Amino acid sequence: MKSIAIDMDGVLANVYSQFVRMHAEEYGKIITAEEMSGRPEGDVFPDALKFVNSPGFFRTAPLIKDCQKILEQLNLRYSVFIVSAALEFPNSLIEKQSWLNEHFQFINWKQIVFCGSKEIIKADIMIDDHFKNLDFFTGETILFTQPHNELTDPGIHKRVNSWKEIGELFLR
Amino acid sequence: MKSIAIDMDGVLANVYSQFVRMHAEEYGKIITAEEMSGRPEGDVFPDALKFVNSPGFFRTAPLIKDCQKILEQLNLRYSVFIVSAALEFPNSLIEKQSWLNEHFQFINWKQIVFCGSKEIIKADIMIDDHFKNLDFFTGETILFTQPHNELTDPGIHKRVNSWKEIGELFLR
Repeated sequence: MKSIAIDMDGVLANVYSQFVRMHAEEYGKIITAEEMSGRPEGDVFPDALKFVNSPGFFRTAPLIKDCQKILEQLNLRYSVFIVSAALEFPNSLIEKQSWLNEHFQFINWKQIVFCGSKEIIKADIMIDDHFKNLDFFTGETILFTQPHNELTDPGIHKRVNSWKEIGELFLR
Repeated sequence: MKSIAIDMDGVLANVYSQFVRMHAEEYGKIITAEEMSGRPEGDVFPDALKFVNSPGFFRTAPLIKDCQKILEQLNLRYSVFIVSAALEFPNSLIEKQSWLNEHFQFINWKQIVFCGSKEIIKADIMIDDHFKNLDFFTGETILFTQPHNELTDPGIHKRVNSWKEIGELFLR
């Protein structure tokens, strides 16, 4: 059974929707898709660090479309691991754990990894929205499209734009 | 630079000392080294699961002798990762993080991994007190002696009995 390491923020959890909502609450302005395109989150949202450290940021994040049903099917055919760089935001650990337990009841504790750097992760496939995680991974690398990476050439990584595309790739 | 994945419980954190203390508080009897030798923790301490789920169990664990000073030196010469199967005990995440921050200030958040199964871990060397973690690891495997494993033939793994021995192995 092949193993898949799946990122949380920007792959399962819609963190952009949290950034946009909190930015609007703070500044009364809705940031558009065009404004976010191709720019690091920290450039688009000057308060990004404050937002991610706010209680509830991770706990109340919406799901990225279709991730629940496709992940449930992947979980039957692959050894699935949810791998999140949670140690960067110490308060996020409990929120992320609760969020996973709520939305992905088919994922058990043995399948969750909260790390700092992902260079210690070994799997056959990695799905992530950040080049810094994919670039040194030795298996098959899937770049999940998010506004910050959508203008960048994926290079050796395969780009997918949705969970539907992930299903088409891995559930045939 | 070679990477080392180092377990927490039973390698850095002296969990046996916590078990013995809490068992004595509960039953008024000090379990001896002979009674612990070669037996799973759960057999020796019938309340083991209750103890590990008690607030403070991980936060107040004493350090295993010499681990601080040897780990600080290893950290200069190796890419060190602290890898703990913390997801088994959800309340342990924050306690373990605080404990690491208190005792190992030279370890930064990028070097910490809280996982369930360790089969997703990739490194050159793994130091652990459990065969279940070492047996499927593909790099060099070091079995750290603890009462539960001390009567078992280490097989393909190299046994070390102390952090001093780890220093002799990796800091020559």
